[in-house]
Amino acid sequence: MPAKETSPDSLTRLRYYLDWASTAIPDYSGENPAAFANPSSLHAEGRLARRTLEDARERCAEVLGVPAKTLYFTSGGTEANALALHSMFCRTEKGRLLYSDIEHPSVRENCLLMKKHGMPTGIIKVESDGRVRPETFARALAKNSDTRFVTIMGANNETGAVMEIPELVGELRSLGKAGQAVHFHSDLVQAAGKIPLDLSGWGVDSASFSAHKLGGPRGIGLLYAKSPPAPLYSGGGQERGVRHGTENVFGAVAFAEVLMCRAAPEAVRCEAAKASERMKYLISRLQTISRCRLIPEDRRQEDERFSPWILQVGFNGVPGEVMVRALDDAGIAVSTGSACSSTSALRPALQAMGLSHNERLEGIRISQGWSTQKADMDALLIAIEKALSFL
Amino acid sequence: MPAKETSPDSLTRLRYYLDWASTAIPDYSGENPAAFANPSSLHAEGRLARRTLEDARERCAEVLGVPAKTLYFTSGGTEANALALHSMFCRTEKGRLLYSDIEHPSVRENCLLMKKHGMPTGIIKVESDGRVRPETFARALAKNSDTRFVTIMGANNETGAVMEIPELVGELRSLGKAGQAVHFHSDLVQAAGKIPLDLSGWGVDSASFSAHKLGGPRGIGLLYAKSPPAPLYSGGGQERGVRHGTENVFGAVAFAEVLMCRAAPEAVRCEAAKASERMKYLISRLQTISRCRLIPEDRRQEDERFSPWILQVGFNGVPGEVMVRALDDAGIAVSTGSACSSTSALRPALQAMGLSHNERLEGIRISQGWSTQKADMDALLIAIEKALSFL
Repeated sequence: MPAKETSPDSLTRLRYYLDWASTAIPDYSGENPAAFANPSSLHAEGRLARRTLEDARERCAEVLGVPAKTLYFTSGGTEANALALHSMFCRTEKGRLLYSDIEHPSVRENCLLMKKHGMPTGIIKVESDGRVRPETFARALAKNSDTRFVTIMGANNETGAVMEIPELVGELRSLGKAGQAVHFHSDLVQAAGKIPLDLSGWGVDSASFSAHKLGGPRGIGLLYAKSPPAPLYSGGGQERGVRHGTENVFGAVAFAEVLMCRAAPEAVRCEAAKASERMKYLISRLQTISRCRLIPEDRRQEDERFSPWILQVGFNGVPGEVMVRALDDAGIAVSTGSACSSTSALRPALQAMGLSHNERLEGIRISQGWSTQKADMDALLIAIEKALSFL
Repeated sequence: MPAKETSPDSLTRLRYYLDWASTAIPDYSGENPAAFANPSSLHAEGRLARRTLEDARERCAEVLGVPAKTLYFTSGGTEANALALHSMFCRTEKGRLLYSDIEHPSVRENCLLMKKHGMPTGIIKVESDGRVRPETFARALAKNSDTRFVTIMGANNETGAVMEIPELVGELRSLGKAGQAVHFHSDLVQAAGKIPLDLSGWGVDSASFSAHKLGGPRGIGLLYAKSPPAPLYSGGGQERGVRHGTENVFGAVAFAEVLMCRAAPEAVRCEAAKASERMKYLISRLQTISRCRLIPEDRRQEDERFSPWILQVGFNGVPGEVMVRALDDAGIAVSTGSACSSTSALRPALQAMGLSHNERLEGIRISQGWSTQKADMDALLIAIEKALSFL
């Protein structure tokens, strides 16, 4: 769907937005401006703000199928991940942190930071499809019996690779008492609203979410945590002492709204089926372009291993950044890797999959959203063909 | 000004809002929805989002009279304070942290957390008017020659006490080389838009701000820091590696808007003069109520020692919480202490001023804003008289 034109400072041409994985086109109301007060205030305005905030939490809990008291509002997905990870530092029982080598920078960089501060860490390798095999995870656990914390994302932000979280948690819990003592965290920022979730059924101990990836506002995230994490910093005691600072009531309401609208099981099934049809069409057409290489190469038109909302693809001899700029000139917004690392050529997730330096540099990410149409894919395909004719 | 009525879930009667210190009635547009994209994306949408964000930063910098590169957007005032304070932990040169004993919980609790983690700390005492005397500060510095970090707020959130920040910084710098090596942080959340600021002239090293206290949205704050602080956690490298997570562009734009509107020097002078007139009227009328006791008792109708936007006052024999509820029933929103500690009876700021346990429990805070009118004060005074007739 073309981005809207609004002001002299805005975009002046019809554009196609296919970078939903970096942020969704906003679509929320975030109603009830009467709830503007500080939820910690005792007066009627404060009590209304408190009710509104807790009602938003209840609605998020209902969508996610977890108790409301296990949800903490944060400033975003990055802070939710950081909160879960750094909480480890405050545990009396120390141990190793295992993380998959395709984690988003908001997880990976915090793991590296903790390693720098002396925490023992270990990496869980992915296969060439960018997914963690349960057997590989089991081997990593066997090799590192001092593991106390595991973090594996639900769906990768660059390739759309979907991890088998229930099976992975199952491997951990099959260790019996030892497995019960290990905390399993999952970054579900790219999974929520895109693939079916079942937090309770999966048995994860914590998980992170971001509103803006679901069409909600920037600056509001959510951490699910079975037991309260230690705060990143202190303050006025908000969010039951876990996340300090005056609560973003409007953000919480908008988050509940987009979660209900986008991430409820029925909505996910319905929209994922439509996304899958569009993705199937896109892949089938890309497969007719000789210089085009799917990443991984064995990705199928319909492929349960991958989120149908994200496709990583490369064009032989064309650096990803060059293709992104060529498509941008043609009115199409796509990206190279994660927006969080768009200026970096490292692409660690693609490296983990065994791609060569050149292959990694050629990768671009096409990510669709709820209002994406077949016409967006057609515009993209025409622009790719045109770009390839002179690149 | 009465809070607006909006939905069945909102307030149903005409109300008077006099709790602006806990949060202001929102008044911002936060325009440019075309800048919805991720500022880290390379495409046109991303570049527009980046330009919009950096333009917001430039406008904030212009109002505050500092270089744009010294400003970091955060999720709020609490995070801005935490960022400045915890940055100390990462310094190679260790030393003592001095903080005044009337700091907001977002500062005080982080000082206590750092103390718990082994940092040497010290308290700077206030006088009975709740203000730090430059001489007291000089003595604290002389006594603690290992001091490397000082944090003193600009205006107190409970009493409105205004600190002499330029004089306090002057005491520090008069120590010559030793004073230059000490970082001076100031929590200016209650000062911005209320009293004239001059960050560069005062010579503070860092300062924190919150948008929602200025009528901006929740979830966006600002840290001024002469040299880049260490991040609280890691991630995608946003805000030049200081504050990770997708940038809240809309929040930044709204923050710039309310800062320009409320905190520009001319706006502050004009609005503070009006607030001062209303405060003078309120105090003069309260002084005719025999059971009423100003906090501190020697606060004058016009008093440069205090922000004209905040008044702390007690009524003999009436617990503050009871008075807040009685006024709430009469349609007036005021608070006891900071909203961040409204459920706590501790009131450390009032304790620091030497108030007895009962005096502290009796304190209530009346705080006005830009749309407050004399009629709000009259409604409050009538409600107080009525409450006192049966309390």
